Amino acid sequence: MKPVISPATINRLPLYFRTLCLLLEDGQKVISSAEFSRRLDVTVTPEQIRKDLASFGQFGKYGVGYYVRDLAKTIDQLIGYHNCWSLIVIGLGNLGWSLINYKKIAALGFRLQAIFDVDEAKVGKKINGISVYHLNEMMVFSRENPIHIGVITVPEMEAQKVANLLVKAGVRGIWNFTTQRLNVPKGLWVVNEDFSIGLSNLSYHLSNSGIIPISDKYILNKVSEG
Amino acid sequence: MKPVISPATINRLPLYFRTLCLLLEDGQKVISSAEFSRRLDVTVTPEQIRKDLASFGQFGKYGVGYYVRDLAKTIDQLIGYHNCWSLIVIGLGNLGWSLINYKKIAALGFRLQAIFDVDEAKVGKKINGISVYHLNEMMVFSRENPIHIGVITVPEMEAQKVANLLVKAGVRGIWNFTTQRLNVPKGLWVVNEDFSIGLSNLSYHLSNSGIIPISDKYILNKVSEG
Repeated sequence: MKPVISPATINRLPLYFRTLCLLLEDGQKVISSAEFSRRLDVTVTPEQIRKDLASFGQFGKYGVGYYVRDLAKTIDQLIGYHNCWSLIVIGLGNLGWSLINYKKIAALGFRLQAIFDVDEAKVGKKINGISVYHLNEMMVFSRENPIHIGVITVPEMEAQKVANLLVKAGVRGIWNFTTQRLNVPKGLWVVNEDFSIGLSNLSYHLSNSGIIPISDKYILNKVSEG
Repeated sequence: MKPVISPATINRLPLYFRTLCLLLEDGQKVISSAEFSRRLDVTVTPEQIRKDLASFGQFGKYGVGYYVRDLAKTIDQLIGYHNCWSLIVIGLGNLGWSLINYKKIAALGFRLQAIFDVDEAKVGKKINGISVYHLNEMMVFSRENPIHIGVITVPEMEAQKVANLLVKAGVRGIWNFTTQRLNVPKGLWVVNEDFSIGLSNLSYHLSNSGIIPISDKYILNKVSEG
């Protein structure tokens, strides 16, 4: 049985994995939690690293450190990168295009199977060897090709309609790049890629470091009204 | 003096804020932590909400709940949405295009001031009223217009060069959409928008719910070699 790992730890695992892969390339065999903490490009304390890793196994050797290859293999299997999940992108706008060219999809072991759009000018083309189908063809496509993950990059108002189609097509996960929150059946996993979190993060840190903004008179209407 | 708030709480504040704005639109004046938890589109327990909100003030009234408008105002000021931070986008590729059209940048109070690229075919154009300049013009532009945030959507190998330019231009924050980790001086805040975290999250949950992948023979070369 696999261990239950906290969502915050799950979010840190890809960061750990990436750093472990770089260490492997450098030929490093063992690393202490203190050095691991310094090598990560985000702030994670050595204590947090030890706690995270302890939540799914016993790794570090006291006085030695973590074995880089073993740890990378374990995280790889835990996340399931090696499972080669199949993925389709719905919506060939600017964001869809940039995702299709996002190298990490293949590098992390995902397989982009098809692209869907409603624009007849796009349907029938091939991009990096991947066919663009009409959205109407998704059900037929899904009968012959198992689809695990649907990536939604359509306009906000179309997102729920596309999500309903994906549910019918039997996907098990949705990667949602729209601001529309989706209603889906239980058991289907949705990851919302929310750019406003990054923006808010920047705003918070700028606001709290004495930087002078353009104007402090601007207040969101929603909040100031009434 | 502003309170020190944990990074995890900071990441949840935009989610709280968005839900509070929806509640305001609905005309709801008060909300309990239990109802607030149900209205959020991510899983945050009522206990966690109470803990988060208690970290920057005393809100809830025992037996009544939180005052929606007061709480929204406080979070708005805390994040600094009302500060109207100025922002430039560097790299007018597919991702740059989709960010320029991302409505939340303006809705959250940020001001897109300019776009920079090195492609002469793009320089000189206007997109949604925003001018596209050559990257060489950034220093001159920055002397006359304060820039708070630089958004990097250039190819990975150009990212550090652009970051160095942004530092010279006096930005205080960088929103990095490339997979390149950036070296910047202390005091400058970098938010890395890392799509691999969303992908890994999906992979983890699919791998742990008994779904049959395409193939379990696929192992990342880096890990399996040697």
